[in-house]
Amino acid sequence: MVPEGTDLLAAAQAAGVQLSSVCGGIGSCETCRVRLVSGEVSPLSLEEEVVLTDEDLAAGIRLACQTIPLSDVKVDIPPESLTAVQRLQVEGQETEVAVDPVVRILDLELAPPTLEDLRADDVRLLDALRAAGVEDPAVSWPVGRDLPDRLRALNWRARLALHGGQVVALQPREKAVLGLSVDIGTTSVAAYLVDLESGETLAKKGAMNPQIGFGEDVMSRIAYANQGPDSHAALQQRIIETLNNLTGELCQEAGVEREQVAEAVVVGNTAMHHLFLGLPVRQLGEAPYVSGLSMPVEVRAADLGLQLAPGALVYVPPNVAGYVGADHVAMVLASEIWNSERNVLAMDIGTNTEITLSAGGRLLSCSTASGPVFEGAHIHDGMRAAPGAIERVQIADGQVRLQTIDNQPPVGICGSGILDAVAEMLNAGIVDSSGRMLKTHPMVSTVDGGAALVLVPASQSGHGRKIVVNRRDVHEIQLAKGAIRAGSDLLLKEAGLTVDDLDEIVIAGAFGTYIHIPSAVRVGMFANLPLERFRQIGNAAGVGARQMLISAERRRIAVDLARRIEYIELTVHPEFTDEFMREMYF
Amino acid sequence: MVPEGTDLLAAAQAAGVQLSSVCGGIGSCETCRVRLVSGEVSPLSLEEEVVLTDEDLAAGIRLACQTIPLSDVKVDIPPESLTAVQRLQVEGQETEVAVDPVVRILDLELAPPTLEDLRADDVRLLDALRAAGVEDPAVSWPVGRDLPDRLRALNWRARLALHGGQVVALQPREKAVLGLSVDIGTTSVAAYLVDLESGETLAKKGAMNPQIGFGEDVMSRIAYANQGPDSHAALQQRIIETLNNLTGELCQEAGVEREQVAEAVVVGNTAMHHLFLGLPVRQLGEAPYVSGLSMPVEVRAADLGLQLAPGALVYVPPNVAGYVGADHVAMVLASEIWNSERNVLAMDIGTNTEITLSAGGRLLSCSTASGPVFEGAHIHDGMRAAPGAIERVQIADGQVRLQTIDNQPPVGICGSGILDAVAEMLNAGIVDSSGRMLKTHPMVSTVDGGAALVLVPASQSGHGRKIVVNRRDVHEIQLAKGAIRAGSDLLLKEAGLTVDDLDEIVIAGAFGTYIHIPSAVRVGMFANLPLERFRQIGNAAGVGARQMLISAERRRIAVDLARRIEYIELTVHPEFTDEFMREMYF
Repeated sequence: MVPEGTDLLAAAQAAGVQLSSVCGGIGSCETCRVRLVSGEVSPLSLEEEVVLTDEDLAAGIRLACQTIPLSDVKVDIPPESLTAVQRLQVEGQETEVAVDPVVRILDLELAPPTLEDLRADDVRLLDALRAAGVEDPAVSWPVGRDLPDRLRALNWRARLALHGGQVVALQPREKAVLGLSVDIGTTSVAAYLVDLESGETLAKKGAMNPQIGFGEDVMSRIAYANQGPDSHAALQQRIIETLNNLTGELCQEAGVEREQVAEAVVVGNTAMHHLFLGLPVRQLGEAPYVSGLSMPVEVRAADLGLQLAPGALVYVPPNVAGYVGADHVAMVLASEIWNSERNVLAMDIGTNTEITLSAGGRLLSCSTASGPVFEGAHIHDGMRAAPGAIERVQIADGQVRLQTIDNQPPVGICGSGILDAVAEMLNAGIVDSSGRMLKTHPMVSTVDGGAALVLVPASQSGHGRKIVVNRRDVHEIQLAKGAIRAGSDLLLKEAGLTVDDLDEIVIAGAFGTYIHIPSAVRVGMFANLPLERFRQIGNAAGVGARQMLISAERRRIAVDLARRIEYIELTVHPEFTDEFMREMYF
Repeated sequence: MVPEGTDLLAAAQAAGVQLSSVCGGIGSCETCRVRLVSGEVSPLSLEEEVVLTDEDLAAGIRLACQTIPLSDVKVDIPPESLTAVQRLQVEGQETEVAVDPVVRILDLELAPPTLEDLRADDVRLLDALRAAGVEDPAVSWPVGRDLPDRLRALNWRARLALHGGQVVALQPREKAVLGLSVDIGTTSVAAYLVDLESGETLAKKGAMNPQIGFGEDVMSRIAYANQGPDSHAALQQRIIETLNNLTGELCQEAGVEREQVAEAVVVGNTAMHHLFLGLPVRQLGEAPYVSGLSMPVEVRAADLGLQLAPGALVYVPPNVAGYVGADHVAMVLASEIWNSERNVLAMDIGTNTEITLSAGGRLLSCSTASGPVFEGAHIHDGMRAAPGAIERVQIADGQVRLQTIDNQPPVGICGSGILDAVAEMLNAGIVDSSGRMLKTHPMVSTVDGGAALVLVPASQSGHGRKIVVNRRDVHEIQLAKGAIRAGSDLLLKEAGLTVDDLDEIVIAGAFGTYIHIPSAVRVGMFANLPLERFRQIGNAAGVGARQMLISAERRRIAVDLARRIEYIELTVHPEFTDEFMREMYF
């Protein structure tokens, strides 16, 4: 309930829903678009009549800042209308997956030993498992090591977690058997606690990847690991500690114990995969950049120092190549593009952008070095997506309009903000197709001896310094979008297709969720296709990991996908450099 | 070459062969019996004509102290003619076993990765294994964890140890792949280093079981382990340290590295098995005394702290019951009694004596508490089999004749010595059939207020105190022999046989090698069967362990044996107590 006359934007903000609002609620920026599902609202405002198309109106789209509810209303908020921070928490789109995990749950009650029945504890347990229909039963070593005391402590009544025929956890009958899925990104880590019986996610948490202290990007972490066994070990220890802490927090939130976690699925790019497992990474940093391990790995959590059930296994899906990792396989799995008869390009945008084209039954994949620009690095006033970061930019009538994360005073520009800024600078004629900034343009100033657009004057910024976009910043976007577009185009060419044959472009990942698609199209990062052919699917790698946790079938599909994917190595592709140079132009 | 006129006893001693010689070389004690194989020797002495039987003469038996070689001669020395120390080093009798170990050796050369061949290291290796005909190849986790660096350090040329299809070690092509077999006794540990290609034993070593510091026997060690997790862990740590040290010494002796050891087989009684593996032992010390794990265990050496090849597995054969362990299974395996159509009783004599009867296709087994008397404990002047221990005793014409280990001045009596002494005291009429010592016998003295036989007066002992056998010592032998005989008889009864149906009695183990069979028969520990029906097979558990190391087939047989063996629990057997009481009499 809100006071009469309150618009939907203010009502949403009062309810803690952070709707985007670049223009500050005057109906000109279109960033607070919502879809009316039910209820009575005020008629269209003049501003809405100007900015909303007929398709928008047919779809029930309104601008929240212009719409006043006249009854109880229900609205649907598209992810792009939420601010970055809120979008971070948005789930990836989930396909309905039947709950049929690799880990099965079995309740048993054993007859205790007597002088007439002297079977050893393991024989007793295995006999009971066979009687319950388990084929080739076995006891995993960490469970076996504690079996005599454990069975007696449980008074011979136990709930078992079985991986195949192998007992990986023995717990009290009243405790649920849980799973953990983790997506280790270069920058952040997302963890999910799942009930393996219901498939329900009980809790989820994110954290920074603590390895950032040893290097912001993959290459600098590889260099750090190569310094010696201690540095290499430190990288593994830090991520393991973080996962142990996250697990503890998840368990506390869900009111469960970490010993109930009988299986984990962990995905990450190939370098994160290797560092998590403690594998050498030298070969990832030197030509020809091959993955050490690419086959699926099943390793005991305890072998990695992960504190779960004593016999818990960690499943790590296969990698495809040195720079196309298990996280991309998980993303492809969750995106369902492998299951489509349409021509679909799916990508995970980051410092490296992994792209897979599903077309004509083939899956073609590449990795392209898009650089750290989308994480706010290598940008004059760049910053991570944190409060005060400029995340949306509009230029109209010689005026710059901004939106910052959490509506804090601006202190820098994050990835989606710089992408918006460059697109708007192109629209405004501030930048030409070669990326040159036109010094004659009235909005262009000279800063530090070079041309620049001042987004925020010193007097209005959060730190008292002006915030600018300069020629080099534009160049960084050119490098990034050139790499992504060249990779996409070469995959299409490899499949004998052109951009017009594309039925869909799927954009996954946290950054892919923030970006304003029209800006990405404007700079040429994506082909100029109708906007409805784009699908932003959020943290699909995390969704894929959870699917592999609750479904043996999804795990099999992932292994098959990794095998099916044809990896195209761009660095030796005869056309890549030409394509890249061409795609640098706007 | 020895000077002319030197007898065989002196010649043997000069050559470092420690022949037994209770009478000091005067031809009256028969302990230096040897069998002439070839060559000319002096004719029978008068003494030999007295002590040797017609069967002896037909078999070529001579007394070494009475026999002077007249040419180059070849003689065969029966184990019972060697002194205890030398016999300790005697191998168990070995059956010819075809070398076909579980661990296979494969030499591979891989093509290094190039930009045209970007397969991951594991995929590359698995492809090469498949090409070499290995089915379902896999890489064990500890090998996989190091794979990228290791393959490059080896320049893509490696010798692999494969356990099934799993790579457990990757080493330079010129290094042999080795195995380790270990027999962990309550008192001592024996370890063997074996070349897995040739099956040859490269080195062997023994050591005390360091757990002795926490308790002499199994029960006191279980009590110590039950004091808490630290005590329990200490017992495991100590034995693991000892095995690591032994392995280091074995490798040094053989000029190899411990990383070449790709597999180990470890046997021990159920308590040693559990403590080695770090399993709880509480249930072994409380009725109904069941084994925690009885199934064969395959565990990574690294999981136990054993320092071998990183991926090396330790195979631990199955136990039969809480007091019939994997060492007995190994002994039964090596003894071949399971493969015999005769009625054979095989036993391992120790603080607990495990007995198996093979008869009519059945294997019946029991364990009986024979106590620590054979280790020299609970005996007034008892000691372990160490230099100066009286190991042989003869009483003739009112005189006591002794032999000590290493011919050192006597300082105590070891197990075989006390057994001999009691047998001879029975023969001499010093002890009656109830075990009472006859105070009226001229050799009996009063010591500490009780009847005793003085074996060594204070003036002749190594420590200046007299060495005696008293009534309680005799009682200890009665308890031990009663338990062993009652167990043997109940197994026979269970099979519907009597002692006369026995074709053979097989005696294994270190102590079983020392004992003088006629003494054991005289006290009634063994049935009164012709001496040729007894077979002393030495450390058969160690032999069995080595067989399981070099032969997958022997491992399968051992598992089958453990399953086939019918365990008879004597503590609840309705006739055991009566039988035991009866068998206490001489």
